Amino acid sequence: MKALFSRMINLGFHKMHRSLLIILGCILLGNLMAQDHLELKWSVEYRADGDPDKPRLAEASVPGAVQLDIAKAEGYAPYYFGENWRDYLWMEDQEFVYVTNFHKPDMKPGERLVFRSLGIDYEFEIILNGRKLLYQEGMFTPVRLDLTDLLNVNNELRIRIFPIPKKHPEPVDRSQASASVKPAVSYGWDWHPRLVPSGIWDDTWLEILPGSYLNEVSVQYTLSEELDKAFIMVEAMGKGLTACSMAWNLADSSGNKVDMGYLKSYMDRGVLYTEIANPELWWPHDHGEPYLYSYTLKLTDQSGKLLQTYSGHMGFRRVKLVMNEGAWSEPEGFPKSRSVAPIQLEINGQKIFCKGSNWVNPEIFPGIITVKRYEELLDRAVEANFNMLRIWGGGIVNKESFYEFCDQKGIMVWQEFPLACNNYEGTPEYLEVLKQESESIIRRIRKHPSLAMWSGGNELFNSWSGMTDQALAIRLLNSQCLELDPYTPFISTSPLMGMGHGHYVFRDQETGEEVYSTMLRAHNTAYTEFGMPGPSPVEILETIIPDSELWPPLPGTSWESHHAYNAWVGDTWLMMDMIEGYFGRAAKLDELVEMGQLLQSEGYKAIYEEARRQKPYCSMALNWCYNEPWPTAANNSIINWPNLPKPAFYAVRDACRPVLVSARNYKLTWMRGEEFSCQLWILNDQYRTLDPGMVKATLMAGKKVLELDSWVFGNVESNSNLEGPVLKVELPHWQSDGFTLHLEVLGHPEYTSEYTFLLSD
Amino acid sequence: MKALFSRMINLGFHKMHRSLLIILGCILLGNLMAQDHLELKWSVEYRADGDPDKPRLAEASVPGAVQLDIAKAEGYAPYYFGENWRDYLWMEDQEFVYVTNFHKPDMKPGERLVFRSLGIDYEFEIILNGRKLLYQEGMFTPVRLDLTDLLNVNNELRIRIFPIPKKHPEPVDRSQASASVKPAVSYGWDWHPRLVPSGIWDDTWLEILPGSYLNEVSVQYTLSEELDKAFIMVEAMGKGLTACSMAWNLADSSGNKVDMGYLKSYMDRGVLYTEIANPELWWPHDHGEPYLYSYTLKLTDQSGKLLQTYSGHMGFRRVKLVMNEGAWSEPEGFPKSRSVAPIQLEINGQKIFCKGSNWVNPEIFPGIITVKRYEELLDRAVEANFNMLRIWGGGIVNKESFYEFCDQKGIMVWQEFPLACNNYEGTPEYLEVLKQESESIIRRIRKHPSLAMWSGGNELFNSWSGMTDQALAIRLLNSQCLELDPYTPFISTSPLMGMGHGHYVFRDQETGEEVYSTMLRAHNTAYTEFGMPGPSPVEILETIIPDSELWPPLPGTSWESHHAYNAWVGDTWLMMDMIEGYFGRAAKLDELVEMGQLLQSEGYKAIYEEARRQKPYCSMALNWCYNEPWPTAANNSIINWPNLPKPAFYAVRDACRPVLVSARNYKLTWMRGEEFSCQLWILNDQYRTLDPGMVKATLMAGKKVLELDSWVFGNVESNSNLEGPVLKVELPHWQSDGFTLHLEVLGHPEYTSEYTFLLSD
Repeated sequence: MKALFSRMINLGFHKMHRSLLIILGCILLGNLMAQDHLELKWSVEYRADGDPDKPRLAEASVPGAVQLDIAKAEGYAPYYFGENWRDYLWMEDQEFVYVTNFHKPDMKPGERLVFRSLGIDYEFEIILNGRKLLYQEGMFTPVRLDLTDLLNVNNELRIRIFPIPKKHPEPVDRSQASASVKPAVSYGWDWHPRLVPSGIWDDTWLEILPGSYLNEVSVQYTLSEELDKAFIMVEAMGKGLTACSMAWNLADSSGNKVDMGYLKSYMDRGVLYTEIANPELWWPHDHGEPYLYSYTLKLTDQSGKLLQTYSGHMGFRRVKLVMNEGAWSEPEGFPKSRSVAPIQLEINGQKIFCKGSNWVNPEIFPGIITVKRYEELLDRAVEANFNMLRIWGGGIVNKESFYEFCDQKGIMVWQEFPLACNNYEGTPEYLEVLKQESESIIRRIRKHPSLAMWSGGNELFNSWSGMTDQALAIRLLNSQCLELDPYTPFISTSPLMGMGHGHYVFRDQETGEEVYSTMLRAHNTAYTEFGMPGPSPVEILETIIPDSELWPPLPGTSWESHHAYNAWVGDTWLMMDMIEGYFGRAAKLDELVEMGQLLQSEGYKAIYEEARRQKPYCSMALNWCYNEPWPTAANNSIINWPNLPKPAFYAVRDACRPVLVSARNYKLTWMRGEEFSCQLWILNDQYRTLDPGMVKATLMAGKKVLELDSWVFGNVESNSNLEGPVLKVELPHWQSDGFTLHLEVLGHPEYTSEYTFLLSD
Repeated sequence: MKALFSRMINLGFHKMHRSLLIILGCILLGNLMAQDHLELKWSVEYRADGDPDKPRLAEASVPGAVQLDIAKAEGYAPYYFGENWRDYLWMEDQEFVYVTNFHKPDMKPGERLVFRSLGIDYEFEIILNGRKLLYQEGMFTPVRLDLTDLLNVNNELRIRIFPIPKKHPEPVDRSQASASVKPAVSYGWDWHPRLVPSGIWDDTWLEILPGSYLNEVSVQYTLSEELDKAFIMVEAMGKGLTACSMAWNLADSSGNKVDMGYLKSYMDRGVLYTEIANPELWWPHDHGEPYLYSYTLKLTDQSGKLLQTYSGHMGFRRVKLVMNEGAWSEPEGFPKSRSVAPIQLEINGQKIFCKGSNWVNPEIFPGIITVKRYEELLDRAVEANFNMLRIWGGGIVNKESFYEFCDQKGIMVWQEFPLACNNYEGTPEYLEVLKQESESIIRRIRKHPSLAMWSGGNELFNSWSGMTDQALAIRLLNSQCLELDPYTPFISTSPLMGMGHGHYVFRDQETGEEVYSTMLRAHNTAYTEFGMPGPSPVEILETIIPDSELWPPLPGTSWESHHAYNAWVGDTWLMMDMIEGYFGRAAKLDELVEMGQLLQSEGYKAIYEEARRQKPYCSMALNWCYNEPWPTAANNSIINWPNLPKPAFYAVRDACRPVLVSARNYKLTWMRGEEFSCQLWILNDQYRTLDPGMVKATLMAGKKVLELDSWVFGNVESNSNLEGPVLKVELPHWQSDGFTLHLEVLGHPEYTSEYTFLLSD
């Protein structure tokens, strides 16, 4: 939601972000764009590593990152290639200053010139003509500074960026982020290099406003128990509102007016309480239409002159976390502990099996994430049959366009605060920043119907983080959400008791257990992180690893920098030993990649489908992870940077179809002559009953085919799975190294599934 | 903490509560007591059950309960005898009005007459001379009304008490309390009859105040990491403070001045920040001295005249809930859930094994709980070697003197909010009252060093309650505690994951499992409720059960009304079948009682000692329950109403000694000739190392004695248990029905333990 019909001056030229400024006042904008002010540009002052005494100046992209500006100015090679990312390490402890100069614009009497930024990373000061206007810690709290009374004819605006926050100099790892609200991922993770961004990372501009203007508009609602009424509160904050009229209009998705009214103003605040009957509800895309209404709020002065228009969209949904089916009857016996925490999501009274993934920063430098990137990646999420994304707490809270796309495309958002895998200790200084940042985050995101739940952060109550329910930071976040967005669920962290994180391998190299049996013994209310590594395709590997290191992959080379070795435990994430243990030694790179990607595909399929078979006790399956911030050599992601699906993406897409025939499998490798077995299921996440039918099951190896028994099944109840027979057959002595199980529902080719196995003696 | 040197007029004559008003201004009080106003008395207006049209008037005891006043006026027999409690049921849906008349007292110019009540139960209005001054829902929020400008010469003050809150007319049970902050217990529990109190339940008086006066004084502090500095904030609220001087004085326990200073006043608030070095720390009695400082705050006017003195005590302690030892390494394997919640209490950096009990209302009518009762029961808790009491959420939050005694006696308090075993649903109306009541509770109790933790309430996250972490009521309480008392731990409810509630029987009648083996397989971080029923002594039974019903005990008689039958499940709490299953048919009542009490004693001993053996993973053992609100026929309590210890009390006392020799036993009944076995332990909760020694173990049956092997043990480390050998011996063919195991540490008769077993063929 942005101010419209107020003139905007975009600082810094960044085409793709201009589109973010959903500007309806095109004529005015056109006028503005013709003005001199647009010629303004940012530079960044820095002191180069080898030349600390002499400040240098680089042209700055805004939004962007100082690291990228300097890299460009200094002629660095791409950071994603080889070991080039190390070139940036010296910047961590440096200060940088953004500088821009501008003429005082022509303004009518009473008009105000306001500097606005949606995000500056991380600790900074803003100085106008030598006078400090603001000190702020925190990248998620937008800046709004009225410069009017401080303007000269020629003005210099400086933004001083402090060194990145570090709780301590050693160890050099994510724990350095544990005293700040800086996302921890860039301090180094098992799929992210140590490369910590700084600078202006979201839209930033000068704005000429009328004497009376709106600062912030908030539209909140509650729904009646029967969902047949929406009680709406429109709230506007601004300046000089008492002397103005504020007209609110709500229109349906066809543009038909649904409601209108005038806000009553008190001081600098205006409020309207209104209600509408029988609102169209917002649904995740696989359960209905993600219906959106649009609204405008027009500010006019006493003469009736239009001063400003705010506009936005809204969707009506009720979201709850309710107890998973069967979970109330646990634990059994005495002494009795509490029941597990609820993680069954209910939208508009309908229990939804959540299928999706963990979203991570799609760029190392959030400043260069484009609207287009968000859109492409979210289109892919719909293509993957995902209805939920968990915005993992190690990364940023996304820019606005992300949530707007989720609203439109019907993708539910599990939003974490930027806390991950650390013990955020709860000093008063930290809590003060966390309070400010969380308030900014909640106020911005709560309006989105796609927002399904808040979470304090990632894996905070596990040993490697060391936080507990007693942590003041978590209690503060719970309290903040309760105050600012009480009807959206909040969980302290993930996993909670009953939910599962992991495993992250096809086969545990210590125990030898394969994913099939891990999942069969797992009894979890939700699988909110599970990984399955796969190597990146050769065309990616060639862009990140020097030719001389490409084959064979070895630790200590760029393979390792790109997470193929020693990223987590064992030889993650390439896991060459495991791959070659299944398939034998690879002769060349593309063979190895193919084998690894097959394991990733089959492994993910096994988990998603088994999680679905465990419905309704289980309510969620989100793999680790969806995308990646730079090109990795091997990773659990199903999409390579920037937006290249791995084969596993398609396997996951198929496993997440609303309806499919599925096999519960027991292992990857079978012996010739051994009795093969699998159990048949129909998985149905739709709220409709499926007709009876027949499943045909076939084993195939090349042209060799072995028919198994068919399964004639009856009705498949709405939002229910149907458990079928265990099929058994003696495996032929086929000479091939593997075979596939092909399942087909007669008359429904769209339900078809296929699984690959290895064959040995 | 009370206003002193302000004149008080106590309304209603209630000797024991007068002592609560820690009045230092004795001369003034003496003067006041001579005044006419003291002659004022309360009456209560009611409409009798059979005579609804004609209001009647009963003399009222304040504090007290309207039910008791009416019972007295109507000549009811004691409510604890037989079925007499049923006589009170008609009062539930009635209104009552307290009435008092008083003359306007002589007051100097500028003085104010203020009505104060510390608690009125539950929904009420206050009317002075026909004018409504206050409507309030909630018994824990004190009332303070300045009557000065509304006074006539003759005044009538009326307090209208609404019918008790009921969410619904049916079912008639505790769920009726689920929309209010009325303690649920009186709606009926397995050890509490349906008998719901109403009325003025805490001290209530008129007070003449000077023109400038203090309303509330709050002293809060934090301690430095090293505990060598206390940073103190003294805050006073009142009227006309700007024109006054406020002098603060802190003295140690010998009365020596430790600190002093003057509050700075702004508007009606005064603040002083100060600090002291090397404060003496408050400790639970078994780990040090419960050291208390005392302070005064003197309000003087510009001429130096003393207007008011507030005084109170304070203790310095740091309290934390930290992870139980070993709990971070759970759960193992993938998929991995969160680690359990911490329940290891740490006082001043020292981990403390908490031994204690669950405290319930010591009277059905909280208005008649006396200071003396609190003191006696808390002296007994110290005698029992208890260092913690859990103030169970089904009952009231206690009166001030309770917490003052706990401060003095060094008993840690786990304080629950008044929510228990219901689904408190979170309507805006309920949440508003809960917010008000919780704020009052926290502001009152946070000052006590004995306060060790807050809890949202009892068993809320179990199936029979149906609340979850998503409940707005729990989130609100967490938020309130965070805001008002951030450094005292808060847990959402009990049990949390990892903690255990139950079992409540010596032998599970369904599975046949005895308490010994239940505890051996239990793996809990804390045992925060475990019961063991025992019949009451004959002298109590004779006062509650008509002679004709006394023998044999039968369901459907007063035995049942007093919880011997159908109280919970099976034939709880008498469990005659089980008792007679072990001991054979009892010939008369005292035999039955003796048998049942033996099981209770041995059962409790087994649990406390096994919980202690599970230290340090286990950190707490609190039995269900300590006391009882009326005389029961059978109950899990170890003290009969009003203050009569059962044999189990002494068994528990011994099991909770800081040091003892203990046997891990495996069953109650052994066969002649069978191999008896038990394992020896030394349990040490003291922070000192015990010297090496020798344990002598003997089996005894009457005069027959069988020596077992001795155990020569080495040092017993500080705050650690020492695991000894398993002793085995073939049982002789003694003719007795039972035998005892006697353990003695040579030279330490205070460590001696004894266990009773049955012997059969």
